[in-house]
This record gives sequence, C-alpha cells and structure tokens, in this order.
Amino acid sequence: MSILTPAVRSTLEKQAIELPSWAFGNSGTRFKVFTTPGTPRDPFEKISDAAQVNRLTGLAPAVALHIPWDLVDDWSALREHAASEGVTLGTVNSNTFQDDDYKFGALTHEDDRIRRKAIDHHLTCIDVMHETGSRDLKIWLAEGSNYPGQNDMRARQDRLQDSLQQIYAHLGDEQRLVLEYKFFEPAFYHTDVPDWGTSYVQVAALGDKAMVCLDTGHHAPGTNIEFIVMQLLRLGKLGSFDFNSRFYADDDLIVGAADPFQLYRILSEVIRGGGLDNPDVVFMLDQCHNIENKILGQIRSVLNVQEMTARALLVDREALAAAQTANDVLAAQAVYMDAFYTDVRPALAEWREGRGLPADPMAAYLASGYQARIEAERVGGVQAGWGA
Amino acid sequence: MSILTPAVRSTLEKQAIELPSWAFGNSGTRFKVFTTPGTPRDPFEKISDAAQVNRLTGLAPAVALHIPWDLVDDWSALREHAASEGVTLGTVNSNTFQDDDYKFGALTHEDDRIRRKAIDHHLTCIDVMHETGSRDLKIWLAEGSNYPGQNDMRARQDRLQDSLQQIYAHLGDEQRLVLEYKFFEPAFYHTDVPDWGTSYVQVAALGDKAMVCLDTGHHAPGTNIEFIVMQLLRLGKLGSFDFNSRFYADDDLIVGAADPFQLYRILSEVIRGGGLDNPDVVFMLDQCHNIENKILGQIRSVLNVQEMTARALLVDREALAAAQTANDVLAAQAVYMDAFYTDVRPALAEWREGRGLPADPMAAYLASGYQARIEAERVGGVQAGWGA
Amino acid sequence: MSILTPAVRSTLEKQAIELPSWAFGNSGTRFKVFTTPGTPRDPFEKISDAAQVNRLTGLAPAVALHIPWDLVDDWSALREHAASEGVTLGTVNSNTFQDDDYKFGALTHEDDRIRRKAIDHHLTCIDVMHETGSRDLKIWLAEGSNYPGQNDMRARQDRLQDSLQQIYAHLGDEQRLVLEYKFFEPAFYHTDVPDWGTSYVQVAALGDKAMVCLDTGHHAPGTNIEFIVMQLLRLGKLGSFDFNSRFYADDDLIVGAADPFQLYRILSEVIRGGGLDNPDVVFMLDQCHNIENKILGQIRSVLNVQEMTARALLVDREALAAAQTANDVLAAQAVYMDAFYTDVRPALAEWREGRGLPADPMAAYLASGYQARIEAERVGGVQAGWGA
Amino acid sequence: MSILTPAVRSTLEKQAIELPSWAFGNSGTRFKVFTTPGTPRDPFEKISDAAQVNRLTGLAPAVALHIPWDLVDDWSALREHAASEGVTLGTVNSNTFQDDDYKFGALTHEDDRIRRKAIDHHLTCIDVMHETGSRDLKIWLAEGSNYPGQNDMRARQDRLQDSLQQIYAHLGDEQRLVLEYKFFEPAFYHTDVPDWGTSYVQVAALGDKAMVCLDTGHHAPGTNIEFIVMQLLRLGKLGSFDFNSRFYADDDLIVGAADPFQLYRILSEVIRGGGLDNPDVVFMLDQCHNIENKILGQIRSVLNVQEMTARALLVDREALAAAQTANDVLAAQAVYMDAFYTDVRPALAEWREGRGLPADPMAAYLASGYQARIEAERVGGVQAGWGA
Repeated sequence: MSILTPAVRSTLEKQAIELPSWAFGNSGTRFKVFTTPGTPRDPFEKISDAAQVNRLTGLAPAVALHIPWDLVDDWSALREHAASEGVTLGTVNSNTFQDDDYKFGALTHEDDRIRRKAIDHHLTCIDVMHETGSRDLKIWLAEGSNYPGQNDMRARQDRLQDSLQQIYAHLGDEQRLVLEYKFFEPAFYHTDVPDWGTSYVQVAALGDKAMVCLDTGHHAPGTNIEFIVMQLLRLGKLGSFDFNSRFYADDDLIVGAADPFQLYRILSEVIRGGGLDNPDVVFMLDQCHNIENKILGQIRSVLNVQEMTARALLVDREALAAAQTANDVLAAQAVYMDAFYTDVRPALAEWREGRGLPADPMAAYLASGYQARIEAERVGGVQAGWGA
Repeated sequence: MSILTPAVRSTLEKQAIELPSWAFGNSGTRFKVFTTPGTPRDPFEKISDAAQVNRLTGLAPAVALHIPWDLVDDWSALREHAASEGVTLGTVNSNTFQDDDYKFGALTHEDDRIRRKAIDHHLTCIDVMHETGSRDLKIWLAEGSNYPGQNDMRARQDRLQDSLQQIYAHLGDEQRLVLEYKFFEPAFYHTDVPDWGTSYVQVAALGDKAMVCLDTGHHAPGTNIEFIVMQLLRLGKLGSFDFNSRFYADDDLIVGAADPFQLYRILSEVIRGGGLDNPDVVFMLDQCHNIENKILGQIRSVLNVQEMTARALLVDREALAAAQTANDVLAAQAVYMDAFYTDVRPALAEWREGRGLPADPMAAYLASGYQARIEAERVGGVQAGWGA
Repeated sequence: MSILTPAVRSTLEKQAIELPSWAFGNSGTRFKVFTTPGTPRDPFEKISDAAQVNRLTGLAPAVALHIPWDLVDDWSALREHAASEGVTLGTVNSNTFQDDDYKFGALTHEDDRIRRKAIDHHLTCIDVMHETGSRDLKIWLAEGSNYPGQNDMRARQDRLQDSLQQIYAHLGDEQRLVLEYKFFEPAFYHTDVPDWGTSYVQVAALGDKAMVCLDTGHHAPGTNIEFIVMQLLRLGKLGSFDFNSRFYADDDLIVGAADPFQLYRILSEVIRGGGLDNPDVVFMLDQCHNIENKILGQIRSVLNVQEMTARALLVDREALAAAQTANDVLAAQAVYMDAFYTDVRPALAEWREGRGLPADPMAAYLASGYQARIEAERVGGVQAGWGA
Repeated sequence: MSILTPAVRSTLEKQAIELPSWAFGNSGTRFKVFTTPGTPRDPFEKISDAAQVNRLTGLAPAVALHIPWDLVDDWSALREHAASEGVTLGTVNSNTFQDDDYKFGALTHEDDRIRRKAIDHHLTCIDVMHETGSRDLKIWLAEGSNYPGQNDMRARQDRLQDSLQQIYAHLGDEQRLVLEYKFFEPAFYHTDVPDWGTSYVQVAALGDKAMVCLDTGHHAPGTNIEFIVMQLLRLGKLGSFDFNSRFYADDDLIVGAADPFQLYRILSEVIRGGGLDNPDVVFMLDQCHNIENKILGQIRSVLNVQEMTARALLVDREALAAAQTANDVLAAQAVYMDAFYTDVRPALAEWREGRGLPADPMAAYLASGYQARIEAERVGGVQAGWGA
C-alpha cells in the first residue's frame, strides 16, 4: 500500500505551481549571459516550453508573465495559445528597473514625472491582467541607493505608499496586488522594500487586496524563513511565494537544490498555517537556469516542491503535537525528521503513472524529442532574456 | 568659533543615555566570566558606579534596572540613594530566562502554570516601576527553540500576544511596554521575537503604550539598521534603543567601537525622523565589558554616542537635500561624509569644560581615585553578575 | 536484498566516532546553564554514559577528554574503567581559557610567564596522553581580542608559532597535534586562529605530526565547508573533525540537525578524498545538549553521521563521474541527490540487528532503564559542566 | 604646523594606486547596465580619463588593463598615449569568463582543449605584458559550479595547479603572477579559489614570483580582512590589493564608502606589516561606478585611500605598543581610534596645494570642463563596458 494516503493524494492532486515565463529565456550574472540552443524567441514559445513542464508533471497549469518582456500585440492570441497548450496565464509581473528613467527609482522617485510613469506602467499591467484573466499583479521594486546619504529613505517610503495607493485604486474587485521584498540587489546600500516587515506595513495600509510576496532567496544569511511564512499566514497576508534556492545571495537556483531541509520546513509551516490548497497563497517559481537546461530545470523544480510537500504531509501531526506539548525535544524532532527522511519518490512515481503522467518526468522529457525539435526549429531571431 | 552652533549645543545639552545597571557587574561568554576588583556587590554600588559616568559626562542621568537582579527590600532607599548620587531610576527590564521553569519558554510556554508565572513576573515589574518612578517596562524574551519541529511556532506567537495583553492591561496611564527583538541566541533554531516586523505586529496589536525596542546588536549580518530606525519612527513605534556594537553575533561591545560609521548613520536617521530630543525615544546602553574596565567602558560609550550625534547634527541638511533631489550621488555622499569626518572632539571638550565637566572624562576618571577606592572597599561579598 | 552492499557494510563496520566527555555534562549559553537529573559528577560517570552510546550503536568506541575538566588522580583506574565499559580514552583536549591568567591570551600572550604556563599545560596534556594511550592532542585556542587596536595580531601569530613548536617538540613519535580554528567567540574582534588557512600555515610549519582540526560550526555564514574538507585532504592535513551543526553562530547543535544535506556533502567529500576508513582522520563530536537529553542527543548524533555516511556511500560514482565529465549539470545533480534522498534507515536497522545491536538505539535507550538509574543514583555532588 | 610630519608626507608622496581601465567603462548588475554620456569607447579614451584622476590627485600613475577588453593593434601607440598623458600601463588582468567555451570552467576545465585555450590566453597576456612593460599578471577565476555534485572539486583543484604551473613557467624574470580569490559569484555553489588559504597554497606551490591578490569585497560576511592582510604579509605572499567596498556581497562600491573604519584597519595592518612603500604590494582599485560619475568616483576613491593612509600613519605606535603590552584595552583602543578620528583633510589639502595639485580634486574636476568636453566629443561608437 502506498505511503501516500488518499487524503495526501487528494491534497497533492490540487497542487499547482506557476512557472515564470522568463525562466525559459536566457539569464546569467553581471559577468556573462550564456545563450543556449532552443531558447524561445517570444512569449508564445515560452508558453509552449512551460506547457511541456505541465504535461509531464501535472503540476504547472499557469505561466506568469513579465511586462514589458512578454508584451504582445494580441492578447487573445496568447491566451488561446496557452489554452491550446493546456495552461493559463497567471501572475503579471511589472518591471520598473530597465528604463533609463528608473536609474534612481521608480515608485519612490523624487521626480513626479518619473514616478507617474512608473505608476502608469502598473496601470498598464492591470490592463494586461484584464486581457489575460490574471488575478495578481506582482510588484518587485529594484529601487534603493548605493551610498549612505544618497537618498532620503523616509521620503521614499512615503512616496512608495502614495504610488501603491494609486495603483491599488485601479485594481478590479477580484484582482490583487502582491508586494515582494528583497534584502539587497540591485541596490547595495538600501533597498526600499528590504524585508517582510516593510512589505507588510506597506500592504496593510492599502487594504485587503494587497498581500506580501515571499521570495525564498531574498533574506539575510541565517534568516529563519519558515518563521516568516508562519507569521504572514497568521496575519492573513501571505499572498504568494517565489520559490528558488540560494547559497549566498539571491542565487536563483533550483528550489530545494541548496537546502532541501529548508524547503521541507517552509512547506511544513505552509501546511501548519493552512496555506496549502488555499487560493490566497500562490506558489510560483522564480529561478534562473544560467548553466543548466531550462525546461529540465523547471521540471526538477516543481518535482522538488511536490516531493517536499508530500514529505511534509506525512508528518504524524498528532505525535508531533504530543511531543511538543511535553517539551520532549528529541521525540518531537524525531517525528519531524522521520517524514523528511522518508523517500516518497517511488510512491509519487507510481501515483503519477496512475494519473497518466510519466513516472519519471525528467527522463520522459529527454525521451520526448522536444528539445531536439526546438533546437532545430528555433534558429534565427533574438533569444529571449532579461532584456526581452 | 566653535563648530558647534548654539542650536547644536542646545540639542546636545538635552541628550540623555540610560545606563544598564548590569553593565557594572561581571559578564562574559559561555566559556568564562572573568571577575574584576571593585565590581559592585549590590544595586546600590551599581548605581554609585553609574553616577560616576554621569558626573564626568553629564550624559547619563538614569540607570536601568534588571529584575530580579536588582531587587531590593527597600525601593525608597534605592531611589534616595540614586537621588543622592544625582541620578534617577529608569527602565525596568524583566528576566524570564534564568528560572528552571523557563527552559522551554515563558510568555509563550505551553504550560499555563509557567506562562502565568512569567506574566506575574511582569506584573511584579510594573509594581517595581511604581516604586521607582520608572516609565518603561522593557521585555526581552529569550524564548525559542533549538531544533526544527521542537515547537509549534504559530501557537507560541498567539500565546505571546495573549500574555502581552495581560501585561499591557496592568500598565499605568503613563507607563509603557517596549518589546525587544533579537535575531538569535540563546535559542538557535527559532526565536519568538526575531525581527522588528514581529515586534511591531505584536505591539501594534496592544495599543499606543506599546513600542518596539531596537538593540543595535540584534540583527542578521548585513542588515541596514538605520532603515529600521527610519521605518519605526515613520510608524510612530520606536520606543527605545539598546546601544552596543558587534562584529559577528550579539557581541555587546562598546557602542561605536565596531563600526563608528554605522552609529553615525543610525543617529543621522534618528535626527531625520525626529527621534532626538523626543521623549518617546529612549537612548540606552546594553553592553558587556567582559575584559575592559566597566566604568571606563560606559564613559567611552556615552561619549561615542555624543560624538556621533554631534557629527550627525553638523550635516548640512539643505545641501544634502539639494543633492538628493538632483540625484547627484557623489555630491550627496560628500555632504553626508563631510560631517562624519569632521573631528568634533576638541569642540566637545571645550563645550564640556564650559559646563563644568572635565574636558576628558576618561582621564578624569583615571585621575579621580574612584577606581582605587572601590577596589579597596569592595572586598568580600558576592560580585554582581548576570546571575545576581 | 539490502541496499547496503557488502562493501558498504564493511566500510560502515569500521566507522568510529569519538564522543566528547563534556557532552555528558551540563552546558548552556551565557544566559543560563540548565541542570538535569542524572548528570555525571566525574569523568568515570561521563565514560559510563558514553559507553551506553557505544553499546547501543556500535559507533562510539572512544571518549575524548578535556583537561583539566577530566583530570583524575589515577589514570590507570580511569583507563580500566573505560575498558570495563568497552571503550577507550581518545583525544586529549587542552583548555587555556578558564584561568584568570588567560584573560588576554595564552599561547599568544605578551607575558612570557603566562605563555610559559600555557605551554606547560600542553606538556601536562602530553603526559596525560602517555597515561591514557591517546594519540592526539587537540588544541583549540580561545585567544583573540575584542577591540581593534587592542593587540598586535602579527606578534601574536609569531608567538603562537613559537609556542606550538615547543609543544610539538614534546610529542612522542606516535603522537599528533591537531590545531582547531574558529571564526569567532569568545573573542569578538579578532581570533588568533580564525580560519583553515591560518591553522594550515601554523601546522605546516611544525611538521608531519601536526594537522588541522575542522569543527563544522566554526565558519563564516555561507562558507562551503566541504570545499575545505577537500582542500585539507588534498594537502594531507585533515587531522580530525569536530562534528556539530549550527544555524547562526557556533550553536553546537546535534550534527546533521540544522542542515542534513550539508552533512551529506561533507561526508561525500570525505569519501571522495579517501578520508573515510583512514586512521589519519578522526571523527569526533563536539556538541552541547543544552535542553535535550544528553545521552539520547549523542545517540542521535552518531546515528546521523552513520546514516549520512551510508547515503554518501550509495552514490553511483561511475555515473556521477560520467555526468560530471560531460558537464551534464542536471544529470550529475540527479545522481548526487538520488543517494541523498534514499532512505537508508530500514536497511541500517536490519544490519544493526544482524550485528547484535538494537534496530532502534534511541528506543532501546529509553527502554533500558539506564536513565532512571542514573537519575536515582547520581544525587548529591557537583554535576559536571564546563567549569568542571 | 601641519599634523602631517615630514616622515608622513614623505611616505604619502610615494603612494601610488593603480586604476582599472574598466572602471571608466559602463558597468551594472544582472538587471541593468545604465549608460552615461562621455563614456570611453576604447582603451585610449579610458587612459585619458584615468590620467585626469592622476593629474588632479598625484596618486594614480598607472592604469591596469583587462585582456581582451583592452586589446589594441598597436601597443606602442597605447604606451605612448599613456606616457603623453603622464601615466604608465600597469597590471594585466586576464579574462576567462566571457567566452562560451568557459561556461563550465577554464583553467580547471575537464576538457583539455578548453583548458589549453585558457592557458594560452594567459600566455597571450604575458606577451602583452612584454609590450606594455607591465610586471604583474593578475588572474581572477570565475570558475566553479552552481549545484552540489555538478563537479569534482578535487580534480579541478589539481588541474588548476597544473594550469598555473604552465603559465608560471612563461613568466619573465621580473614578472609576477598574482592569484585573486573570491568567496562566490558568478558561481554559486563552489568557487575554485574561494579564500585566501586556497590562493596561498596554490601560489606557494608555484614559487617566489607567485603571490596572492586580496580584493576587499571578496569575503564572507564578518570576515576580519585586516587579519588576512597581516597573515599574508607575514608569509611574504601579499602581492596586491583590489580595493573597493561592500555592504552585502561583492558590491564593488567606492573604497571606504561602506565602512571607512575597516579601510583604516586594513591600512594600519599594511603599515604594521611593512606593506606600504613596498614594491611587492600593489595598491589597485577594482570598482564599478554603476550610478555615479566614473571619473569623480575614481578621484573620490584614491582620496579615500590617501586619507585613511594618513590617519593610519598618525597612530602613536609607541603609545599603542605600551598599552598593548600592558593589556590596557581601553588605552590601546583610545590610541588607535584617536588617529582614525583625526581630520586629516585640511592638512592634506594644504600639502596637496604645496605640491602643485588642487586642494579639492573633486571640485577641480568639476571646474575643469573635462566632463563637458568628453560628453560632447564622445558621440557615436560603442561605449566600453564589461563586454568590450
């Protein structure tokens, strides 16, 4: 009998992880962006690649867009393309860091003209959301300063609130704004939304449709991320995850690759706080496959999330609660670690097959011929990357 | 003519920094607590030592107490002793980490009996505050867990709020509760109040008399502390500072010793946000003089705060604002750094003398004979430390 | 058939992990040391407790001593006691941080008298090693400074080399000196042996019998520890491990508890570099069970090392090498992770039983009645701790 | 009378800081490279800009080159251009991270063809050095891996040594090889030369003409960099500095901007170890002026180094030694801090004027009209950046 009980399977069946369109384009570091054969040249091709991940895993039914990188003339064509590939269009991500005007800020800028432009960009994004049927507008701000004294942090914080209010006012009834925080980069001295506390106070001042986005790579060394997950769920303000992993800074590696146990702890806290199978909490990847195959990298990533979710669901919550109440440190730890160390992969493979999915999605992709096909077909044109 | 304008002098004149009674007792690391001749044996002697710092610097008119370390039978005697030494009794600090009952928590404990005991300890502290005339009850919680799974962090957070509400309800009209946060230690996996965000949401749920305490040593590596100062002032929730400095963890070194420029940035943001000469924001030291002379260590500390405050007051705010508005990065930085690099020490020494204080308080202490006297007199008894 | 091949089992059979005698005494943080019933009062009782760990796991045949904490009048009595309990006496650890003379240094001290005293302490340790039959003298130096300018770091480095040479000269032919490094604590500004590079250049200047000790908790945040393992094995200078785990600083938690995947990576690199089943490389624990049962904590620890070693031995080295050579990033990662995710616990339990050991050593300890016995018997006297 | 004694002035007079040619080109983060009017289009223009810095400060007589970014057809023309501008060509920096072949390594690559290519690139650099009259070949390796298991770190280390030996063998008698280390980036899991220890053992195995390069931004959080300076000087292996500053990662900000006191401590240790006015130790900048004016950024940087050097030279070494010997912690710290807090800027300005240099080089640049001229003249063409 499978170690995955019907209840666990039923929960896993509903798990959905949004893929970022930009994960299929080229990415790199400030030193070099390596190109790779088969890289998409436009949003349509990105969506086709994302759909492969979903076809082989059943885990990734939506694709997040990045504006302006994914701007198209005909949104219904893109929507139909997605539908024909079996996926939908998800979260819309704004970009206010690549226009020369934004060198010193966007939603926080001193200059009203530039701030207006940045706000308008978000209104455009909301328009796009109406076209794509997306619910969430995700805002990550690359704003900050590099030198102490360079800027008035306090005034920027106030302008940020004002800008967000203007954007928030344009949201449709069913739409949401999720505000991401980031510890540092690309600004090195101060970042305007550096931590969950700042994101929380900014969105709390907006209203119920504004939530916090937690990117797992955006914290100081040593931060207990699952504590923040717990707190945001407790406050009813965890809007979404950007999953990835890191050793040092915001490395944007495959989720679960750097510290699988941390991913387990995060997902355990999601379950504890009612964040799984909860429409309020969006699971999304935000990664860069600088040196590995991008489609395989995304498959590996959603499988990692699924495997760790399955482990976290196996925790004997009753035994855990009993040991916790008794302050039996090692007994509680044993219950907690037992689920982590249980190898759920065979049971998941079997279950996957029972649902008409490949037991080994990585192998299935390699056997599918898809990679060879896109490498052959996608010749010429400009490969997508962070600039397009 | 002095570089200290009348306005600057007038602001500096009002600067007051609370000294922690425990800084005059022995402290150390888990490896060793070194004792030193002349160390106080009781709260009366601690206050006498603290009064020396005030006498020589004019900067430290209040002494913070730690309960139960500073419990005395006769509070009016202690208050009169303080008065006779020219100082007052300040913030009362609770201690819920040294009783065997608190091994697994206090205000967050699963066991109602222990949680009740911890709450009652705080009510006792409030009683003490009525005796001492102290306004602030400062709560630092040593609570947390060492192993993932050991505890239910979410339930602890809820119990913490409940405990704080019970304490808050007992505050007098003029009294306040300030909640300190700490990144880690003594718990190593999770801490119940690890960051400013958690402290903020906990005190915001209590009411206007609850504020956040920012200890400069309690952050993750790389944290921009002055940003937090700015944010808490903006939110009207910065209740007090625990000043010290650190290279790695919570080293509790002399404030300004590890990174003087950071202290300057913090004080600049205090000034920018209206936190200087503001009764809502208490300046306090929280340090350990493990290997250096304790009284001299405290003198050095308050002088460091004064010197950096003076530098921060010298910033040409108009020129800075102009450069910031123009996004002239290097011009803004130049204005900001110019004040930091200005040597205010001669002007401060002269001004000090004009106020009947020694030009060089460190030298004055060494020349005073006080140290020799306490070393001769304080023989026998038990030296004060973190255990008493 | 077991997933543990005969070759793997044969390797595992030889695995031996030294236990630190001090892990069975009380420990804590600077804030509080909690005592626990049943704690040993002397080295004999510590060894009895350590022997329990070995009896139930077959993994811990030697007990490391700490001098002067474990000084006894009659070494042959202690040796015989150990033998009667089925264990031997292992590494001798020196202590130059708890005498008042060592406040400002020991082997690096400016004062020749104090430096001589510290050197002599090590000569005493070598004498003890002759009595106990120990091969290794492990030196961890708590030396450093708290404030920039406090000391001349360069002169200290030279004095350290001189002191070590004097100690090295007294080693017997079969004896070794292992020098531990530590990033920080108890000194906060500078530590005299802060990193592997310093330990390496210090021991390389001594000779072949001097090696580096790597404590897994003694690195800066983000350090790739397995890289250092690789490098020291490559240089022939990895003398021993102090195993433990940490989230923030030198937390001294149960090895593998904070980041099991890191332990796996370290052990993988040990295997890759020929450090397993190699008499030159000593495996040892160095942990503090501040809040959990100490004997169970040690059992859990050696089992964690064994389990991760087993996983690391399962790596398909041929497939890994092929994928690495082909720079097939995700294929190499898959091979590497596959072994990590394999649940070796059932196979280990079975194998353990086949060797006459309990399948579940934790449960066996709880069922053994040993804990109740020591709690009943060890009443009165002074519980062992870091001070004794 | 100036606080700068004749001896101090004489030392300062000899101070020389190499400027990196690439600091005058565009740089940025992975998110965006902002362009700026007046940016050089070729090595000739870069050298002209660098010469401005030298003209106004007298501190920067040499310009480091980066190959292939600074390749020219006619080296004697470049050399003559430099001479006509009053500067010389300095350290040659190799680049093995921007060719598609180097995606998985260069000097450590598994594939002999690629490794050969990378070695040959360095031999080309040595040829360039003969043309330019440069003494030093600086090697920074961007090599490493992103995922555990991706590569065999040990074999890479051995191949690195082999590659370096082949390069070392081609050095002329007066030439040197300096090997830079870096904690992380662009590789995120492991870096082949991550720390000073690795760089040291690699160059020590080569011979006397191989040295370590210390980039101040390439360390883990909390690292005591001046300790490493001390150690490398003690070992006779400190070949050069890459100066810059950072808050979080390798931010490449203006040296001294993030933590002026750290720069002071580093320079104090340089002086203590005989590294100032010592031809073996090259001072160089390696910075990115992403958002500020590049020429002004370089002027500010060399002035920061000069100012901190002057402060460090003011330390009363005799008083410091006396306090250190007496272990008078606060007295030693006071001596050390007194020099740091002394405002040397007026004295330096006066001295500068006495040498025919502008008192305020920043203002002089702004008044010179140079910026307007290059903005007007440098129209068209491709601005230099990290790709050219």
